[in-house]
Amino acid sequence: MVNPKLPAFFYGGDYNPEQWPEAIWQEDMRLFKLANINVATVAVFSWALLEPSEGQYDFTWLDKVMDMLYEKGMYACLATSTAAQPAWMSKKYPGILPVTIDGQKRKHGRRVNFCPNSLDYRRASQALVRQLALRYKDHPALVAWHVGNEYGTYCYCENCAKAFRQWLKERYGSLEELNKRWYTNFWGHTVYDWEEIVPPSHLSETFSRGYMEGTYFQGIAIDYNRFMSDSSLACYKGEYDIIKEVTPDIPVTTNLMGTFKPLDYFSWAKHMDVISWDNYPSNKAVMSNIAMRHDLMRGLKGGQPFMLMEQTPNQQNWQPYNGLKRPGVMRLWSYQAVAHGADTVMFFQLRQSRGACEKYHGAVISHAGHENTRVFREVSQLGEELKKLGDKILDSRINARVAIIFDWENWWATEYSSGPSIDLKYVPQVEKYYKAFYDMNIPVDMINEDADLSKYDIVIAPLMYMVKPGVNGRLEDFVKNGGTFVTTFFSGLVDENDLVVMGGYPGQLRQLLGIWVEETDALFPDMKNSIIISKPFGNLHGQYQCGLLCDIVHLEGAQALGAYGSDFYAGMPAITVNDFGGGKAYYVASDPEDAFIKEFVRYICDQKSIKPIMDVPDNVEVTQRIKDNTVFTFILNHNEHAVMVELGPQVQHELLSDKYLSGATVIPARGVFILES
Amino acid sequence: MVNPKLPAFFYGGDYNPEQWPEAIWQEDMRLFKLANINVATVAVFSWALLEPSEGQYDFTWLDKVMDMLYEKGMYACLATSTAAQPAWMSKKYPGILPVTIDGQKRKHGRRVNFCPNSLDYRRASQALVRQLALRYKDHPALVAWHVGNEYGTYCYCENCAKAFRQWLKERYGSLEELNKRWYTNFWGHTVYDWEEIVPPSHLSETFSRGYMEGTYFQGIAIDYNRFMSDSSLACYKGEYDIIKEVTPDIPVTTNLMGTFKPLDYFSWAKHMDVISWDNYPSNKAVMSNIAMRHDLMRGLKGGQPFMLMEQTPNQQNWQPYNGLKRPGVMRLWSYQAVAHGADTVMFFQLRQSRGACEKYHGAVISHAGHENTRVFREVSQLGEELKKLGDKILDSRINARVAIIFDWENWWATEYSSGPSIDLKYVPQVEKYYKAFYDMNIPVDMINEDADLSKYDIVIAPLMYMVKPGVNGRLEDFVKNGGTFVTTFFSGLVDENDLVVMGGYPGQLRQLLGIWVEETDALFPDMKNSIIISKPFGNLHGQYQCGLLCDIVHLEGAQALGAYGSDFYAGMPAITVNDFGGGKAYYVASDPEDAFIKEFVRYICDQKSIKPIMDVPDNVEVTQRIKDNTVFTFILNHNEHAVMVELGPQVQHELLSDKYLSGATVIPARGVFILES
Amino acid sequence: MVNPKLPAFFYGGDYNPEQWPEAIWQEDMRLFKLANINVATVAVFSWALLEPSEGQYDFTWLDKVMDMLYEKGMYACLATSTAAQPAWMSKKYPGILPVTIDGQKRKHGRRVNFCPNSLDYRRASQALVRQLALRYKDHPALVAWHVGNEYGTYCYCENCAKAFRQWLKERYGSLEELNKRWYTNFWGHTVYDWEEIVPPSHLSETFSRGYMEGTYFQGIAIDYNRFMSDSSLACYKGEYDIIKEVTPDIPVTTNLMGTFKPLDYFSWAKHMDVISWDNYPSNKAVMSNIAMRHDLMRGLKGGQPFMLMEQTPNQQNWQPYNGLKRPGVMRLWSYQAVAHGADTVMFFQLRQSRGACEKYHGAVISHAGHENTRVFREVSQLGEELKKLGDKILDSRINARVAIIFDWENWWATEYSSGPSIDLKYVPQVEKYYKAFYDMNIPVDMINEDADLSKYDIVIAPLMYMVKPGVNGRLEDFVKNGGTFVTTFFSGLVDENDLVVMGGYPGQLRQLLGIWVEETDALFPDMKNSIIISKPFGNLHGQYQCGLLCDIVHLEGAQALGAYGSDFYAGMPAITVNDFGGGKAYYVASDPEDAFIKEFVRYICDQKSIKPIMDVPDNVEVTQRIKDNTVFTFILNHNEHAVMVELGPQVQHELLSDKYLSGATVIPARGVFILES
Repeated sequence: MVNPKLPAFFYGGDYNPEQWPEAIWQEDMRLFKLANINVATVAVFSWALLEPSEGQYDFTWLDKVMDMLYEKGMYACLATSTAAQPAWMSKKYPGILPVTIDGQKRKHGRRVNFCPNSLDYRRASQALVRQLALRYKDHPALVAWHVGNEYGTYCYCENCAKAFRQWLKERYGSLEELNKRWYTNFWGHTVYDWEEIVPPSHLSETFSRGYMEGTYFQGIAIDYNRFMSDSSLACYKGEYDIIKEVTPDIPVTTNLMGTFKPLDYFSWAKHMDVISWDNYPSNKAVMSNIAMRHDLMRGLKGGQPFMLMEQTPNQQNWQPYNGLKRPGVMRLWSYQAVAHGADTVMFFQLRQSRGACEKYHGAVISHAGHENTRVFREVSQLGEELKKLGDKILDSRINARVAIIFDWENWWATEYSSGPSIDLKYVPQVEKYYKAFYDMNIPVDMINEDADLSKYDIVIAPLMYMVKPGVNGRLEDFVKNGGTFVTTFFSGLVDENDLVVMGGYPGQLRQLLGIWVEETDALFPDMKNSIIISKPFGNLHGQYQCGLLCDIVHLEGAQALGAYGSDFYAGMPAITVNDFGGGKAYYVASDPEDAFIKEFVRYICDQKSIKPIMDVPDNVEVTQRIKDNTVFTFILNHNEHAVMVELGPQVQHELLSDKYLSGATVIPARGVFILES
Repeated sequence: MVNPKLPAFFYGGDYNPEQWPEAIWQEDMRLFKLANINVATVAVFSWALLEPSEGQYDFTWLDKVMDMLYEKGMYACLATSTAAQPAWMSKKYPGILPVTIDGQKRKHGRRVNFCPNSLDYRRASQALVRQLALRYKDHPALVAWHVGNEYGTYCYCENCAKAFRQWLKERYGSLEELNKRWYTNFWGHTVYDWEEIVPPSHLSETFSRGYMEGTYFQGIAIDYNRFMSDSSLACYKGEYDIIKEVTPDIPVTTNLMGTFKPLDYFSWAKHMDVISWDNYPSNKAVMSNIAMRHDLMRGLKGGQPFMLMEQTPNQQNWQPYNGLKRPGVMRLWSYQAVAHGADTVMFFQLRQSRGACEKYHGAVISHAGHENTRVFREVSQLGEELKKLGDKILDSRINARVAIIFDWENWWATEYSSGPSIDLKYVPQVEKYYKAFYDMNIPVDMINEDADLSKYDIVIAPLMYMVKPGVNGRLEDFVKNGGTFVTTFFSGLVDENDLVVMGGYPGQLRQLLGIWVEETDALFPDMKNSIIISKPFGNLHGQYQCGLLCDIVHLEGAQALGAYGSDFYAGMPAITVNDFGGGKAYYVASDPEDAFIKEFVRYICDQKSIKPIMDVPDNVEVTQRIKDNTVFTFILNHNEHAVMVELGPQVQHELLSDKYLSGATVIPARGVFILES
Repeated sequence: MVNPKLPAFFYGGDYNPEQWPEAIWQEDMRLFKLANINVATVAVFSWALLEPSEGQYDFTWLDKVMDMLYEKGMYACLATSTAAQPAWMSKKYPGILPVTIDGQKRKHGRRVNFCPNSLDYRRASQALVRQLALRYKDHPALVAWHVGNEYGTYCYCENCAKAFRQWLKERYGSLEELNKRWYTNFWGHTVYDWEEIVPPSHLSETFSRGYMEGTYFQGIAIDYNRFMSDSSLACYKGEYDIIKEVTPDIPVTTNLMGTFKPLDYFSWAKHMDVISWDNYPSNKAVMSNIAMRHDLMRGLKGGQPFMLMEQTPNQQNWQPYNGLKRPGVMRLWSYQAVAHGADTVMFFQLRQSRGACEKYHGAVISHAGHENTRVFREVSQLGEELKKLGDKILDSRINARVAIIFDWENWWATEYSSGPSIDLKYVPQVEKYYKAFYDMNIPVDMINEDADLSKYDIVIAPLMYMVKPGVNGRLEDFVKNGGTFVTTFFSGLVDENDLVVMGGYPGQLRQLLGIWVEETDALFPDMKNSIIISKPFGNLHGQYQCGLLCDIVHLEGAQALGAYGSDFYAGMPAITVNDFGGGKAYYVASDPEDAFIKEFVRYICDQKSIKPIMDVPDNVEVTQRIKDNTVFTFILNHNEHAVMVELGPQVQHELLSDKYLSGATVIPARGVFILES
């Protein structure tokens, strides 16, 4: 939906005038205009200024900023300031301060440093939000609401313990059911009173193992993740509801963070008017991984355009090595966001801080303070281009025949697993399959287990370890109706409580896949097996390396496409396909090298006559956004050199250069085409 | 001693029927019988079910299980369930929960999560044990008791501090003595009141340095290890005494864990009727290291047969990479245990859990739930074989002329040392010497410092850093009487309080060894020296690499066999031998490469005319168990291919195949022979 | 100043007779005399013995020790014993025990384990010191006072929080000023009440990132470092003032630790009569790094001779690999200290402990207890030499025309920076430049930002990130008056509160350097750029590798000496020089390989006609100490082999051998010459 007040790409970013004397604000406005900025995100961290003591509000400076923006023809994405409570509040209500997973009570500091179940926090934040909403509801500059900031703190305090017990009562009804679901007779953990339940922390059932958390009771730990995701969501939703009550027509969002593990963004998305997210790839990022995250964010609300709420115009400050974005990269990556569904291109930050930890994070206006910088020029040029694009592309959609399932609860469960291998990680498995489609320029939707599958030809579910209720039925229907389904090793094993489905792996998926997995071997990192496809299936043949896990598979109706090359299970199926109704269900029983996945994906696409949008040289990305029969084709050259692309015989309008192109055409290094047809 | 109720190999494992509906129990019985299982370990973690609220016991389900086992012709190794107190108990008696070395009070969760000095824990656990003992004392299925499970938690709570002070009063009598033993005038730590003593935690005198603990006061830290080992032992012993009072004829054990550092198993063994232990090697394990642990467990009670209480039939879940045991490996490794003195072969677990952290640990009955699996077939075959062996081998012994000293207190002291090198680790040094004998198929007893040495020809004491009172005298007597003694660098330095023996290293061992060690050089990992033996001693000559530490040795009666090859101490003695009475005392002044140790061990064996049991190809292990003049020779082929072994002219009965063999005979890959003669 | 009681090199070390029975003391005296020792540092950790209960003092044993020393012709460096409070005190006044950065209350143990703001600690320590001072003020053995020991503990307790608030009030006067300086509007951290301020710990604003600490608010963290350095200093000063009141003529020191980050030693030095420090290089130490630390210690009090308070005669115990000092190394390194300004050569320790963590630290008298050791002989020989040198060299000075700025506050600020690179470390950058001069045998003074620059020709300020008030003006005056100034990338950015100087980098240094740094690229460790000097400047030309950070520089009056070789800023200035008044200001915009720094330093020295003291082979170090027109030239051969040095035509007296040398002369492996001329 195009914003009626500002029917254009939102272009701007986080702006913190409260860090500066007023004298600078006027200069900021001049520079914003020069940079073709039309939206500033304000008041992200202003609670202490807006409410200097309890119940006493002071909006003077914010009034001025809002007015000034509007006077200069700009708009405000108004934040609720609740991501960091004032110091006086932490002191007055120490219950607001969270307790870490190591059992330590935090002190005031940092940000998102509150217990999400603190009623004091919720009351005070909602009171502020009501004040803000009432004060600015009719302000002409207001175009969007930005609730909190980068939610995600987990807390383990007594207050959370109480709330957790309540949450469990609602989920399970009885202790009998809870004992069953958590499998508490294991290690004699049977619970006879709700009060005996303690949050799973490093002092009880969990432990740290490098960057991943381990647990002795997966069921408890997964439920605590759900509960904590819900708890932060309740904070968000408390604010959201007040805002919608007061300004029902202004879109509300909060800035998400891509594949951020602590929060189940699919459950959050239901309560957001529009998805927004912060994209901070390193200079060594793999482009397909960024693309996947854009598609995931788009997928959260079923394909609805999203906001790129934050990116840096040149460098980060918090990564180990914060290299500069090379000339053209900021523009290229901004268009990549648009190419994947963004209708907004925003930066963190508009003016660079003088002090504290983000002062070496890039900004539109650097410490130099003027417009004569490479970064400012690039920002200004991009603003100019986006302005020219007008509302043409806005609210257009992407049509994908392929979907990849990405599910937070499955992610949590997979990585809480004790065994078979500590190298079992969810996101990299999803990224591998995504990359194969990306490299072929075949559009992909990122969906979760609950999604409607009927619109897809191919559905891939890498590491679908947890199969939630109803999912298997929908998958079977999808395949019966002709769909192609692919899943991998270590799939189908457990239900939503991480209880193994008895009778043989892959559990609920066994019939669909037509196999029985008897055992799963775990390989040391220096060990490899291979997948041998001796009889070609289309393009699929030859020998490929595999590792990590090797399922030992027996066929129960499925057919083996490839077999293991070595070890005592040499010759046993490593890749299988099962004809199920009108469709096919594939099983990849080990973790193959990328070259296999590439050929395999090409094979299943061929079977479904799914073709690349265009055939282009390596590292050239192509997507399409469609609106009312108009197709916008994005061609992004990620190479550091110009390449030739074949645009075909039909002349198309390239919107950025305003040229009409056809046939073999040179796209410059890091260049972008947006072809309208 | 052969169990009169079940005069056969115990074969079975941990069984947790309380995790399953009763409907499944009957199926379990059928499968157990099919697998030739005769013993199930039950009630390991059942406290919460057996005592749902304080003092109210419910044995209904356990009665059924015990009866059912007996009805089906099977027996119970009955556990006391005290390794995990119920949640209600942790809540009611929070003093039961331990405090970590980092000073954090634990919450309910995990297992062995109790303060071993909690009187509430001891009272409650003993009350349960009395109930169990009284109830099942006459049950025909009862063949053994299994107290607790894998003891070993250290606690640092105030209650432990009090108990520690009492323990110290009993050990030292006066503060004057304690100050002297702990050397408290160092850093002004003199104590004037018992109450001033605090447990050595990360908040006081200790610190973590990677996987090892460091300390500023070795004397305090070693005493706390002793005290904590004693504290857990007191928990065990409290249960043991009640059981023996009620069922004096049923053997009692608790499952140990091999080279488990926190507990001094030699002091525990005195209070165990039979040793049992859990053997969980990784797929990359070195076979001699497993063998050494079997021998150590056998050595705990002076050679008495032990129980292999737990091993996995296929894979673990808690190691980083939990590979499958290849076909035949479970059988081979089971016989390895028997070959080293086990009269029991048990698994963890009989039926695989559906939930929680051990659900991907291997089991006899997998999640598939039936007998048609590789693992079940292998288990069943082994059960069949063991059944056929009857009681023939039971209670037979191993005769060794060589002993290696392994001492927990010495281990603790060595690795608490601040300097000379963080790479100074005890167990690997012991393993190196053990391996040399293992590779030659020469039997070894693992003994501690207090053992009677008179039955041995050779005694090796690698890294005998701490020499406890009386030990030196016994060593001197041993050598005087013709024995061969070998020790290494960094030996003889301290007494039982880690106080240096003044006057010159190696302290108490100086006279026996006939040397004075003036200094000890520590080499960086990238530095090496060499040992040069220019004049051959038997097979011993040539040049070998050495590193880690290099003692600078002066001869005081001893003779140099080898000298350093480089650095400022080049030419000084690196290997010495001292004629002492009728025997010889050797000193290895640095850490040599394995090739040297191999030749050195061969040399001292030649001197004593100690020969391999048999000459066999590499990776073939040979042991002998002897009973009433019958010798059972075990030949284990650890190779993944068949090899030829020369069995000699005499025809021998191979018990597993029931064939009569002699001369050159092929033993298959991973094959086992048990020859009776 | 030469000590009137003992006008000679102090030679001896830490002596802990309280760890030994009196019977041993007489033997110690004999051995000390044999080793030519004249000073023993006593009572470093004797508080518990000196004050066995509150207010009750017992000096009996110390009286005996002091008397015995004097009777044998030796002197005492008398310590105040306050580095480790007695256990009874920790128990009686638990507020003395500190709270760690992780928020954990420490228990009794270790040393320097007190809250530096504890009034109980200060009262009790000062009471003890008054007793000591009054008792021994007229003791003839007393030649120096040694306050505490290796200060440096940071505490985060409530008491420190209160003291911090008071310190801030004094520093900033008002909360308005504090909010401005700390930039608290960032993340809404505005403070309205002093009580809202909490120390920056891991529970509030800081976090651990490997061996460095990170922070979200640099301004707060830097102030806490200042405050903690001041807090420990207040403990020291409290003792110092009492001592000076009682014994105004006896010099007072405390042993520092070189580049020890927690304490700003330049601010400490103002309150010390003489600097002393503990030098513990590993066997893999780079010699220039040791030399730099000696020069830094000398620089703390503007070139005044310092005491080498501790070094080991053979090996340490607390490093990972504690190798022996090879024969001659202890002597060589002792003379290196003297060559850089030490008038004292002392050891830790005189007699090796029997127990606790330092028992494997080297000592003059080893556990063997006699004089027949390599180490004792080396110590004795060195003592003999030093005795022969008499007071000749004492109180002589080093003349340097080059100064390198080393500033603790800048160090803290640089490494607290969030971005651009985690590899940005201060000390290695200083070491690189120091090494270039060291390798050329050009003397260097280590000074801080506040130092008087007028006596130098060249001033180098590597990584001068923080420029404190007044510094820029002094630098500009220095260059105007003909000086050569060199600074590097990431310099000039912030003021003393880590607030960026607005308008363009390098901030305050911009005019002096004549450049504007638009951006700073951070390179991954595997990335490199190069510096190309195509037009030779003297010896300076060719191509050099650089990395870490690359400033993108625009000339504003300066001239480019070299340019980047690659990336989008290829061809832009990488090395610049600005003519400013009569001098030159250089900027090194990236982190070059050592080969470049070597040539660059040679170039600027050539420009100033600064020559090496002597031309000598590699790894031969040459320094000069000057006194009343006598020049003492130290030649130290760090090679493990003899080398030839050219001493010139003039015959000079070599003091150690008492020979007269000239022309080409062989200096033995690890040999030392002290030439008088």
